[in-house]
This record gives sequence, C-alpha cells and structure tokens, in this order.
Amino acid sequence: MAGLYLSFLFQLFFCLSCPATNPSMLNVHLVPHTHDDVGWLKTVDQYYYGDRNNIQHAGVQYILDSVIDQLQKDPARRFIYVETAFFYRWWKQQNQSTQRIVTQLVNEGRLEFINGGWCMSDEATTHYSAVIDQMTLGLRFLNDTFGECGRPRVAWHIDPFGHAREHASIFAQMGYDGFFFGRLDYQDKARRMKTKEMEMLWRASESLTPPLADLFTGVLPNGYNPPEGFCWDQSCDDAPIRDDPDLEDYNVDEIVQKFLNAGFYKANHIIMTMGSDFQYENANLWYKNMDKLIKYVNALQAKGSKVNVLYSTPSCYLQELNLANLTWPLKTDDFFPYADDAHDFWTGYFTSRPALKLYERLSNSRLQTCNQLEVLGGPKSKSGPFGEGDSDTMSKAMGVAQHHDAVSGTEKQHVAYDYARRLATGWAHCEVLVRNSLAILSGSEAPRVFCENLNISVCPLTESSHKFSMNVYNPLGRTVSWPVRLPVNGSVYSVTDANGRAVDSQVGNVFISLKCTCYIYDMKSSCLLPLLSVSINNKSVLLYVFKFLKVTFDETTGLLSSLTNLETNQTIQLTQNFYWYNASAGNNKESPQTSGAYIFRPNSSDPFVINKTAETQIVTVSSTVQEVTQWFSPWVSQVVRLYEGHRELELEWTVGPVPVADGLGKEVITRLDTDIKSSDYFYTDSNGREVLERRKDYRPTWELKQTEPVAGNYYPINSRAYIKDDKHQLTVVTDRSQGASSLYNGSLEIMLHRRLLYDDYRGVGEPLSEPGDFSDGLVARGRLLLTFTPPDTAADVHRPLAQGMVLQPLLSFQDGTPSANTKLEFSGLQTDLPPAVHLLTLSQWDEDTVLIRLEHQYQAKESKTHSQPVTVNLQKLFSTLDVLGASEMSLGANQWKEDMDRLQWNAEKTSKPLPLSAKDPSPWEVTLNPMEIRTFLLRVRQL
Amino acid sequence: MAGLYLSFLFQLFFCLSCPATNPSMLNVHLVPHTHDDVGWLKTVDQYYYGDRNNIQHAGVQYILDSVIDQLQKDPARRFIYVETAFFYRWWKQQNQSTQRIVTQLVNEGRLEFINGGWCMSDEATTHYSAVIDQMTLGLRFLNDTFGECGRPRVAWHIDPFGHAREHASIFAQMGYDGFFFGRLDYQDKARRMKTKEMEMLWRASESLTPPLADLFTGVLPNGYNPPEGFCWDQSCDDAPIRDDPDLEDYNVDEIVQKFLNAGFYKANHIIMTMGSDFQYENANLWYKNMDKLIKYVNALQAKGSKVNVLYSTPSCYLQELNLANLTWPLKTDDFFPYADDAHDFWTGYFTSRPALKLYERLSNSRLQTCNQLEVLGGPKSKSGPFGEGDSDTMSKAMGVAQHHDAVSGTEKQHVAYDYARRLATGWAHCEVLVRNSLAILSGSEAPRVFCENLNISVCPLTESSHKFSMNVYNPLGRTVSWPVRLPVNGSVYSVTDANGRAVDSQVGNVFISLKCTCYIYDMKSSCLLPLLSVSINNKSVLLYVFKFLKVTFDETTGLLSSLTNLETNQTIQLTQNFYWYNASAGNNKESPQTSGAYIFRPNSSDPFVINKTAETQIVTVSSTVQEVTQWFSPWVSQVVRLYEGHRELELEWTVGPVPVADGLGKEVITRLDTDIKSSDYFYTDSNGREVLERRKDYRPTWELKQTEPVAGNYYPINSRAYIKDDKHQLTVVTDRSQGASSLYNGSLEIMLHRRLLYDDYRGVGEPLSEPGDFSDGLVARGRLLLTFTPPDTAADVHRPLAQGMVLQPLLSFQDGTPSANTKLEFSGLQTDLPPAVHLLTLSQWDEDTVLIRLEHQYQAKESKTHSQPVTVNLQKLFSTLDVLGASEMSLGANQWKEDMDRLQWNAEKTSKPLPLSAKDPSPWEVTLNPMEIRTFLLRVRQL
Repeated sequence: MAGLYLSFLFQLFFCLSCPATNPSMLNVHLVPHTHDDVGWLKTVDQYYYGDRNNIQHAGVQYILDSVIDQLQKDPARRFIYVETAFFYRWWKQQNQSTQRIVTQLVNEGRLEFINGGWCMSDEATTHYSAVIDQMTLGLRFLNDTFGECGRPRVAWHIDPFGHAREHASIFAQMGYDGFFFGRLDYQDKARRMKTKEMEMLWRASESLTPPLADLFTGVLPNGYNPPEGFCWDQSCDDAPIRDDPDLEDYNVDEIVQKFLNAGFYKANHIIMTMGSDFQYENANLWYKNMDKLIKYVNALQAKGSKVNVLYSTPSCYLQELNLANLTWPLKTDDFFPYADDAHDFWTGYFTSRPALKLYERLSNSRLQTCNQLEVLGGPKSKSGPFGEGDSDTMSKAMGVAQHHDAVSGTEKQHVAYDYARRLATGWAHCEVLVRNSLAILSGSEAPRVFCENLNISVCPLTESSHKFSMNVYNPLGRTVSWPVRLPVNGSVYSVTDANGRAVDSQVGNVFISLKCTCYIYDMKSSCLLPLLSVSINNKSVLLYVFKFLKVTFDETTGLLSSLTNLETNQTIQLTQNFYWYNASAGNNKESPQTSGAYIFRPNSSDPFVINKTAETQIVTVSSTVQEVTQWFSPWVSQVVRLYEGHRELELEWTVGPVPVADGLGKEVITRLDTDIKSSDYFYTDSNGREVLERRKDYRPTWELKQTEPVAGNYYPINSRAYIKDDKHQLTVVTDRSQGASSLYNGSLEIMLHRRLLYDDYRGVGEPLSEPGDFSDGLVARGRLLLTFTPPDTAADVHRPLAQGMVLQPLLSFQDGTPSANTKLEFSGLQTDLPPAVHLLTLSQWDEDTVLIRLEHQYQAKESKTHSQPVTVNLQKLFSTLDVLGASEMSLGANQWKEDMDRLQWNAEKTSKPLPLSAKDPSPWEVTLNPMEIRTFLLRVRQL
Repeated sequence: MAGLYLSFLFQLFFCLSCPATNPSMLNVHLVPHTHDDVGWLKTVDQYYYGDRNNIQHAGVQYILDSVIDQLQKDPARRFIYVETAFFYRWWKQQNQSTQRIVTQLVNEGRLEFINGGWCMSDEATTHYSAVIDQMTLGLRFLNDTFGECGRPRVAWHIDPFGHAREHASIFAQMGYDGFFFGRLDYQDKARRMKTKEMEMLWRASESLTPPLADLFTGVLPNGYNPPEGFCWDQSCDDAPIRDDPDLEDYNVDEIVQKFLNAGFYKANHIIMTMGSDFQYENANLWYKNMDKLIKYVNALQAKGSKVNVLYSTPSCYLQELNLANLTWPLKTDDFFPYADDAHDFWTGYFTSRPALKLYERLSNSRLQTCNQLEVLGGPKSKSGPFGEGDSDTMSKAMGVAQHHDAVSGTEKQHVAYDYARRLATGWAHCEVLVRNSLAILSGSEAPRVFCENLNISVCPLTESSHKFSMNVYNPLGRTVSWPVRLPVNGSVYSVTDANGRAVDSQVGNVFISLKCTCYIYDMKSSCLLPLLSVSINNKSVLLYVFKFLKVTFDETTGLLSSLTNLETNQTIQLTQNFYWYNASAGNNKESPQTSGAYIFRPNSSDPFVINKTAETQIVTVSSTVQEVTQWFSPWVSQVVRLYEGHRELELEWTVGPVPVADGLGKEVITRLDTDIKSSDYFYTDSNGREVLERRKDYRPTWELKQTEPVAGNYYPINSRAYIKDDKHQLTVVTDRSQGASSLYNGSLEIMLHRRLLYDDYRGVGEPLSEPGDFSDGLVARGRLLLTFTPPDTAADVHRPLAQGMVLQPLLSFQDGTPSANTKLEFSGLQTDLPPAVHLLTLSQWDEDTVLIRLEHQYQAKESKTHSQPVTVNLQKLFSTLDVLGASEMSLGANQWKEDMDRLQWNAEKTSKPLPLSAKDPSPWEVTLNPMEIRTFLLRVRQL
C-alpha cells in the first residue's frame, strides 16, 4: 500500500507540473488553444480531414499533427485540447511511437485536456441527459487512454451563446475545479469589468447542498481570441515579430510595447487565450512568435519591467487563483439571454431548426433504449441473430449532435443534414442491437420492423398485414400510459394485450382500430392503444373528458377559451392562437442586425396574427381520446387532444411550409393568454432540470437597459415553462427545446418555427430557410402538453410528464402471430422505481460492469409529496441482473467519488438557506436528495 | 591524395542518392517544391516573415521550418529549394542543431537545392551581367555552406514569362545538367505535347563550341502546379485523402483512380510538380496526403497496375532521362514572346516600370564600380576613413532586383518602391566603400559627394561652389569619352584635366562651362566635359557634326528626316515620331483580356500619333555637342544630340506624366521609319549579349497562328535592336530593357512607357499606373543611341557603345582644390584591354583572392576585325595587383572548371556549321573565343 500511495503522489505531481510564476510581477498566462467546432460550416468529417476548405479553411487532423510536433521542440510550450470527438479520431490514426510521445506530453502537463467532452455542448437547447452522456463519452476515452493525467480539471465553454445554470451544476458534479467561458451579455460584461466581477463562484443549484454544485467561473478577457494584434495563426493577418536587427521593418520594440499596453486585469495573474477557431493547423507560426514575445517581454524585467509572460494552461492559471485565497462574488442565476449589442440578442437559435431539435431529442430516447437493451440482452445483443449491432455509433452521433452548432440549429444546411444522417446511421446500428436483444429477451427471432414514419401515418407492415404484433419497449423506470396511432387498411381490428385481454381501441377515418397481439418488453409500462374516430361539426365544442380536465372552445373564433381542473375545480380563461413576428432585415436607424439562425430580432414588438379565427374542422370523440382539429391557414393547424386517464391537454401543432414569397421572414409563435395574475414573472427550465424564475425586462444581478422588448425577454426552454399566481399554474411541457417568453400579464408564448431571408452575420453565411422535402419550406410538427394545477402540486404532474416526453416507448412490429414459446411480457426492473426516482442511465460499461445513474427528479420544495430524500436498494433493482458490487463515481464517470477532491473557494455570504442532504442508510441503500444524481459502476452477472 | 580521392567519391555517391525506380513501370516522380517570389505582391521581407498576409498569405520562414520538420519524418520524402535569397536568411536564424540536421538532409539528397541563384531571374528584362552576379551570389552561399552536395544540378525557371536563349547559355556554362520551365507559348506547347517535343536539347549560342552552351531543357507538364485535384497545400481546396474506412466520405479509391487517369507523357518517367506559389508553409498537409497517394497507388501494383509513384527531385528525374540514352530535338532560337492564349501576349512587361528598369541598370554599373574599387582599394575600402562600407548590400539588392517580378515591372507599386529603396540602401553602403577606396587611391581624405540628381540638373555642391574637383571612375576596361553636364551658378568656368590641360567645355543657358580640376581614377578613360550653349531658331535644322554623322530634320514637321554616314557616304531616309497604343480594356467579342503590367494588348493595331509635327524649340551648336529639342506635347519631348568624336546619334526622350483622364490607358512608343529594305526581319539581343533574328508573324520552329498583330510581334531588347538590308544597318542601343518590334518594312519601334487603367488578371491586382513624385503619373526619361553603318561593321560600333551604356563612369565631387599630394590620375589596369575583351567581373572573393571574368564581347562572324580569338595575359592585367595564381572556374564560380562534368545528351543533327575554338597558348595566357566568358579565381597580392 505504501508503494501504491507513493506512486499516486508521483503521478499527481507529474500531471500538475505548472510553470513557475513570479509573485512580485503581473503574470500573463498565455494559453495556446484551438476551438474546433464539431461541425458548423462544414461537417465534422470535413473539419477533421480538412475537406471543403473552400467553405472554411479548417483541418483538425493537421492541427493535432502540428501541435504535437511543436510541443516537442520546447518543454516550456503548452497546449490544451478540448473536443474529444476529434482527438479520439486522430489518436486512432497515430502509430505507437506518436502515441508514446503524446502520452509523455500529457504526463508532463505540456498537452492538457480541457473540458474533454465529445463536443463543447450547446447550453440553451440541450437536454441534461444527452449532455451528461456526451461528456461521459469524451471523458471515458481520455481516462482509458491517459489515466489520471488525462482527466480535465477545467470546463471550457468558450463559444456557446449564453450559459445554463444546469451546465455549471453538471460540471461541478463531474469534478471540475473551474469553468471558463467567453460570451456573456455585453452590458453584464461591461459591469463586471468595472466592478472586477469577471471571476466568481457559481452556485448552480437551489436544491443540492453546497459545494456540490458550486463552480468557480471565469469570464475570459477577449472572448476566446488573442488580444488585438497578437493573432499569429495562419488564418490571421497580424504582423509577425520581425526580430532581424538588419531588417528595415524590425518591429520587436513596437510589438512588446503594444503588449505591455494591452489593458490587463488588475490581478496578479491574467489569462490570455492565444488561439481561435480551428487555429494551430500550422502551430509553428503561433509558437515561433510567442517564443519571441516571451523572450523580448521578459527581457525587459532586467530593466525594471514588472510583467512576466509564460506559457500556461487554464488549470495552472486556476491553481494560481486558488492559491491567492480570495473571496469571490456569488452567482445563482444564469447567463441567458446573451446579447453582444443592443439589438443583437442570440435568442433565435432557441428555436432554429425545430425538426432537427426534435429528432435529436427522439434520438436520445432511442439511445437510452438501445443502451438499456444492450445491458438487458447481454453480449449477444451486439452480435446475435440479426447481425452486428452497437450503441457506440449512436452514442457518438448523439455526442456530436450536442455541439453548440448542432442541436442549436446554427450550422449550415448541409451540416444539419449530416447531423441527422449520423443520428439515423446510429439508430441503424442500434436497430440491429435492439432486434438481437428483443430476440434474446422474447425468445422469438422472427423479423421485426420499426416504423420510422408513424408521425406521417406510414408503416408498410401495419398497412398491409391482417395480423401483426406490436412490441412496446418503455425505457422509463415506471409504468406509463402512452397513446399509439397506427395506419391500417382494414376496418375492423381486435386488439389484445400480452395477457390476451382486449385493449380499448377505435377506428377513425384515418386511424382505425387493429386486431393483433400487443406484448410489452419494458422497464415497466402498460399497453394503451387509443385510436380515433367520428368527426362532428366544428362549432362550440366542449371537451369534457374523463375526470381531470375540461376544455372549452370559443364558438365564434374556434379558439380555446377556458381550462378547468376538475379535481380542484379551478378554471382559467385561456385563449391560444398562432402569430408571427416579422424578422428584421436590419435597418439604418438603429442597427443593421437581421434576424438569423442565431439572432432573433423582430421588426416590431407586435406579432401578426395568423388568423383571428380557426376553422375547427374535425372532432373525434371516443372513450380513449377526444380531439379537435383547428385550421388557421394553409400552413398552420393544430389538433387538440385529451386522453383517457391523462391530466394534460395535448396541442399538436403543424407549422409550415412558412411562406416567404412576400419577402418577409417569419418567426412563428403560439401564445397562451390567460387570466393568471403572473405579472412580469414566468419560469423556464435549465437543460430540462431545475427551473429558474424569469422576469420581464429584468436581470437578477444587474441593471438591464432593455433595447429589444421581445427578443431581450426570450429564454430557452428545454422541457417546460410556466406562469403562475397564488392559486393557478399553467405549465407547458414541450417535446424539444424552444424559445419562450411572457410579455404580458398571464401570457406565455413559445416560438415554434422560423424561416428567414437573411444571414445574421455570425459566420454561418446562410439565411435560416430550411427547404423541407419539397424545397418549398420545412413543415414542422410538435406537441405542447398543458397542465393546469395549483402551484404546489404542479411538479407532481409536470415532472413525470416531461420525463415521459423525453424517454418515449419504442414500438416494433412483427408480422403474424407470435410463436408459442414467445415471451410476451418482460420487465428489466424488479418493480417500478419510486415516483421521485428517474433512471437516467443504464448502459454497458465493460464486460462485467454496467453504468447506472439514478436521479431525484424533483427540486427541493417544489412537491410536498416528492421533494424528500428517497432511498433505492441497488441490489434489488434488476430482475435479470445480479449486482455483485457497486462503486460510486463522479457524474462524468471518470473518477471514483471518493477520489474527488475539488479546489475549495471562498464565496461571498448568501442570505438564502442552504439545502441539507440525507445520508445513505447502508452501502447498498443509496439515498437521493432532491435533484441529486448518483452515478455507480455496478459489477453484474446475468441471471 | 588517395584519401582525398576516396572522400570525393563517397561524397558524390552521397549527394546523388536518387530513389529507386521501376524500369518496367511508368515512374511518376513527385517533386515537392515551393515557388517563393523574391518580392511580388509583398516585399521580400514581408514574404520572408509572413507579414501583410492580408495581401497574400505567404511566409517563407515558416515554409522552411515546416519542410525541415517534415523531411525528418520519413527518409523517402524529398524537397527542393530554389531561392537562395530566402534560404540564406533562414539559415542565419537557425541554431547549430537545426543547421546540422539540414546539412544531413542535404548530404542525403532529401533536401536538394535547385537553380540556387539569389532569385529566379527574369529572362526578358535582365542584363547578363547582373544575372551572372545574382547566380554567383546564391551559388556561392550554397557552396560555402554545404559544399558539393549543395551544388544545384538543375536550373529551374518555372515561372518567368518566356525564356531567353542567353539564360540557357549561362546555365550551361554554369555547369547545370538540365533546365526546366513552366511557361511557353500555348500554341508551341500544344504542338510539343502532340509531337512529344516537351523535352529537348537547347543549343543556346551560335558562337560557342558545342556542348559548351548546350542545355537539356524540359517543359513541365502542369506549368509548375500539381495536376488538377491534387493540390494539398493549405492554400488549396482540393479534397484531402480520407482513408478512414469507417468514414461516410472515404475517398481513396476515387482519388487513386483520378490519379491513374491523369494524362501522362508516354515516356517511362514523368515529373509532377507538387507545389506552387509559397506553398508548404504547412508541409504536413502535402506530405501526409502524398504519403497516402504513394501508398494507395503503389498498392495497386499487386493487382497488376503498372504505375509506380515516388518522391523525387528534378535531378533524379533528369538522371533517369539521361540513362534512357535517347535522341532529343534540337532548339536554337528562344521562347519569346510568351502567350497563354490568343489575345494574351506577355509582352507588356518588357517595358513596364521604365524608371525602375533604368535604375536597376544604373545600379549594376554602380555595383561593378563598387566591386572594382573594393579590389583596388584593398581591405581598408571596407573599413576606412569614411567608416564601414560594403558591396554585399548592393550585391544582394541587385540579386533581389533580378527577380522575375522585380526588374520585370510586374510587382505591386509598394514593392517596386521597396526594390528601389534596397538599391538605394545598397548604394549608400557602396558609397562609403567607394569614398574609402578613392581616399586610399588618391591619398586625399577630403569629403566627397556623389550628385545623385544630375539627371534633373541638381547638385548642391557644383551649384554653390566656386572651385571644385570632379573625379570620374570608369569601370570599363578601356578608355571612353563620356559627356558630362553639371549644374553651376557662375557664368565663366575654366576646366582642366588631371595634367592641368584645359578641357573643352561650354556654358549654355542651363548648363555652363566650369573651371575646376578634373582628375580621373579609372580602369582607363579620358575626361571629356562638353557643355552646351546658344539657342537658335527652330526650322530646317541641319546637324552636321564633326566627321561621322549627318542628320537632317524635316522643315515642315520638325521630325528627323535623314541620316548620313559620312565615313561610308551612305544615306537613309529616317522619320522618327512618338505614338501611343490605346491599351485594351478587354472586350466581349474576342477576349476580356486587358493590357496590364504583364500583358500588352492594344485596342487597335494602329497607334495614335502624339503629334504629327514637333515644335523644335532649342538648338545648341558648339564644338563639343549639337543639340535639338523637340516638343511633341506637354508630356512628350526629346533632345537630339551629336557629340564630337562620337559615331552615335543620341535621342534623349522624356515621356510623362502620361495622361489617362480620358479613360484610355496608353502605351507609348517611338517609331523609326526608314527606307531600309528590312522586309519582315529585325534583330534583338538576348539579355544584352547574342543577337537573334526575328521575323514578323513567324516563329522559327513552329507554325504560328498570329492573333495579335502588334503584341504578338513584340520582343524584349536589353541593349539593342536593329534592322538591316544588304547595305544598311540601323542599330538602336538602349539604356534599359524595353519591348520592341518591326511591324513594317524598314520600321523599328520601341515601347518607352506605359500607363494603364486595368489589372490584367495575372495576380498583381493593380493597374500599372505609376504615380510619380506628384501622383499625376510618372515621368520617364531615357536615351536611345542610333548608329547607322553597313551591316558588316555595325558590331564594331554597337558592341562597345552598348557596354559603355551598361558600365557608366561614376562621378564624384570634392569642394575646393585638391591638396598637393593628391594623386590626380590612376588606372587599375596596366593598359587598355584588347577591343574584343570586356572586363565583366572584378570583385573581391576572399581575403587574398579576386574573382575575375573576362568576356569576348563579339559574336562569331559579326565583325571582321573583332570576331577572332583574343588572348589576354592574366599576370599582366593589373597595375597594382600581383597575380600569384589563377584557377579557372565554372561561370557561376561554384566549381573548378576541371571538375565540371555535365551529363551528355544526344541531339538531332544540325546542318549549321559548328564554331570552333582556339586554345590557350600558355597557362597565364588565356584565349577568349567569340562570346566566350572565362571565370578565374586569382590569388593576388597588393603591390
């Protein structure tokens, strides 16, 4: 043990070999770095190989080649690398000799991994489930390849367009010592520069006990660029240092003076990002000139200069700040929305590319299913009767899709297609795995199809077969009821469940009831097949379904008019309609800024109504579902549904092709106007987890000068938004990330779709105008689930509702009747998880180990019933796995929990009471406190 | 000696380590190279450091850094480097370790120097004297640094815009085994591709005995670029090889197929230039992809492919061609003019930037003077009473000025200024050396000034002093008479020579006679100070001066009307006038091509006359000079002069500022129209040496389809052009390089100046519109010397006249009377050289050695008197130097003559009789055959 201990110490020392600084001088930490978008103007492959350089000159393979060469030339030189999606691919292509060199550079701290996720995720439009997965994917590669010295100490989100509190919370729980970013509101930045609050402690959760979600956070001085005049990349035109004294244009003195004059922070240490997008493809240019800069600036110390320049890294800089033992300001809200000028609010991308955003979310659900079935099916799921399958491809596709120019919708069109293609390819690999796994679990190797196009009512098998079975796999840890619609050609079907019991179903003019065997393999679910029928007239409709909700429509306008909670007997007036903001084409008066993929800038604060009245054409009433279809225009319609046994009202909207022939770009919203006295307040989630309070024309920590009354009040929602007063809360659960706001008392608006005519000058170089299948504009369809409750029970409804939206059942179909020995029902869990517990992750880790994440899905205080510690016994979770051992890990699964030893920081005192946490009753019984996620590596054996 | 011999063998083997080829396959020699202009869009310093990358991305320091790194990664990789001006500077900045690595790479043939001059000289507008000097400068650095392995074997002029026969002759005499270039007339290229005459033996002299001036010459297949689709530089957008089989866009098969389909020569070997302008700044991109190309193409050999790709160099390729022992077509003319399309004749640059072209020529004269005085003054000339002086700075400035975008006039304006500045700086260094040397030689350390502005009649000393002495240093090897004009303020001067004898001089209204001591230090000269006076009326002027020439003017037009040789009593009608071609702005009908810095394209074949009549305003008649001034317009004038004792008529033209406010670009010519029956023939020199016959609308070796009747008949002249018939020859000797043609029987036209409004799409990106001192357009002034003789004695006049124009006396001035012990006359030579012998080079080599080049300045057969072998005794040349030993060298002075062992080539037989050469009578007595240059390193001791 002594030997082990020493070796551990040795390694620690080895990895953290930070350069010496000079305590009596201003130490300028030059941080050589490259920012490599995992797709943007080019696809991730094109960026890696340096293809399509006519679009943008960028080739990551060469960046890494070049940096590794240059690092070897001088032990003082340092470099940080961030995006593991690229590094991983490069590493695979290196020979052993290069791999050995790189390992040594890592061990010596000369090459340091920073952030280390598969990508640098977007913060506004990502769901925490996928973010944790993509971080885990990247960190695991680094850990497997380099061990402790490869573990990133610092989170580094230099480019994302605003910063989510949940991201900070995740980073803290992953063990990062600090976090740096580049972009924040220009007013906020100006203030922080003035008050020296560029660095702070971010308390990123109101539920978790500090310092669990505390993260030291620094705003970088120059975004992520070098100071003006000091960009020595091949992509820059700044003057190189010309130090040949014979030269007519010798410029050393001038450059050194300029450097000394650059406005520094007043601290003893300052970080300087020396690099930018896809820089260091020819690292020699950078290092050669920085070598000279260091040499000539430090040479002045002999003449009394108090400036000390050195190669460094963010973690070395952070270490110095930590040693300074200062007290830092405390930050408890987030950094949304982001504006870089008065009319330049980056709030359009909250909604940009709504179909890609949905597909990404759906793909997450599929990946979780794939991961779970890989665990449940065992090794044969990857190589079984249907061939070779894997979840890795989908993991990587999802990893890439989290990038801040992927799901954000801010990439070029051809790149958006590439992301979608990758997800589809990933799913194709998963499909094989799922087929294998279901064959193993059911004992039936009969062919199985997945109907990908059920959203447009296409499924060749169900449309042609007289007898088929449907399998529903539910990846949630508990039973849900889920409506299914299938296209069929017959007119009379009988539907039975796994036990042969008849299932309630109906045949409508499009969707008809079916007769088949319905059996279920899932974590725990029920089989519900409500199908629709009977159209009636379109005026004065009253939907009064089952026992939970009453909805009324205005008989003149055809719009929703009220909502009644039948359990509490509360009613609100509720009007819902669709509008479009006219996207600004820029103007000479205030700003040339246009609305684009990133920026939302309406021409006027008043949106145009699509139609004051809706043509309410079809109504279906049955014992399973009640349904009204509203037509607002040829390109906007909606189906309003209530399901038996459900508390939510479903609004299925269809928007598009958005017409732009009139020369006007359009940003389409739906707005809910109620008599709830919400005043200026509304609430939005952060990455699908904790909820933040928002207030119109207001920022919690700084004096806002509002210059964009609409765009400046938009916030990202990933899973939900709500408004409330003392008695009522109207919550909207969404199926994807969107932008939302509340601009009027009692009002909540959500942006659904955007089609624009101009680029917005942030580099993408294209107007956001998705062509769709027929090149006339993309049609987007989606669902908003409305719940109406008293505030104190709202979470009890919207928490499980939102998780059910994220992890959807997977349907698959087999022709004919299942053979006799087919197992018709299966559950991987011994029993439903407790209502507060969400199964966030279940995936195969190594041959005998499984990664599991259990999550408390309620915030502290939001639910009387559920905002309590809850305990789960790890040994009693699975029905088919014997759990032999469990080791708790950091959230990123790249460190044992017991080894986590983050830097400690002093923050200003807060008046808010700090949440407390309960302890585990025993080693196997783990307690989850509100909003806590616990990550375990389980050693398992298939039963 | 045996040891030395072995070591020599070993080294030879070492340097020539060519890669193995496969005799049964088509061997594709990939030649990685960069083409680094020694100034063009940026200055040479900016190119070296990578400054002003906004103009053009290019940084040579990084190219060499990167290539050296990449060469070390794989011994198969090769690179060639060409421009020593850049390599020299880079080498100086490397540490010993890098220098050792580079030396090893050179010794192993992995880095090979090709061409190796200070620059890649222009071929149309350079004078052979400066070309030989710049080659010597570059080759010497390589020889001193790397020895035999650093000696370039191949001449490489991939970019110059047409190719001069004299350049080929120079390369042959410098010991090159072969010559490759990229640009030749598109019709010629098409024919050669068809007839497989892309490679040939160039017999580059009609005077020198073969194979002395024979040079194997190859036209590169793709100019100097890679085949389409295979450019992998950072500056290119071609697809990289994506060889990850998991990749969606794996493209190896496609790329390999494309490579195999690229149209090759049918030979067993083909050379492929893999590189272009300033490429390889990030050499990894190139090598990484070429490595893959070689790997995947050669892998197909296992499947029966007969293509073998390898890294190679031009000399390795050449070696393979030589081993093939084929017979090659013979080329005896040159490659002018160059056209890359029907209306795209690169004949404008023959004249572009006339003032820079003159300044470069004048600077050559100054450099030769500086070199000679460094030898004659001994070591103290570099560090003497006037401080530290040197000739190196001027040598390098001249080396740079020979570049094909320097003296050619095809650089950006700011770069043209930089070349001029470098020449001025070079001269400033030389001035100190010259002052020191003259102080040593004269024994007078009195201050000495050089009047730089005599051309515009400014010299503060002569204008203010009542008594001053003028020193004339004549760098020619023989006595000349040379007119001098000085600005003075007095009205009566007496002028005496070194012996106190009165010198004939005159005072005019501007130029007046002067009284001073005139003494001369020179190689051999006389002091002549003719000054002008007396204006008379301006009609019907008859100039009938002294005994040689009679000139008449037309009394109506004021133009020249006839010329009579009074020695032979021959008369021709001669009209001379000035015209301008309207520069094409491009047109839709034939071609969008404009006239520009490179291209000459007149809008019409008929030039506009500036004025049909000249106002003949001033006539000066004296016993030393007769002079008529002609005014054609406010921006075109001319002074016509005859000097006592001279056979030539001097036409001093002044053109500019060329007006372009009318929106028309103008290309100004002067045309001499005579009754000489020249038919379609005329004659132009090649780089100031041998003369080639030209014929209108005709090329000697191929069927021309003439598409530009004017521009397609222009040829470069560097020192002279003539027309002749059986009895008469009119020769024009010029003071700089110009474009000239003969478009009519008896006519000869010379382009003097150009001012244009459009860029001509060859990269320079600026219209050629020199602003001049007052931003209203540059004024150019120059001299044409006309001689009129029978053809068989013409050379006797124009040869010495042209050399006198090239090497002009240097004037310097001292105030007051020389002190008593001042030596007033000095000659470095014991006696005048024989009339056929020209002292081409006399410069200090090492401490005790001097480089001398003696040249026979007559062609075979052109002079009855002088076209004979002539013998010089090396020991009896100098008056102040004892010659202790002499070793003959190659023309480039980087190899002992006896070691020269060029590759032998078989050429098609020629019917022309081959010139024979006479031998040396004794070791000290060296015989020069017509047009021969002999280069010696002399061991000397100052007497």
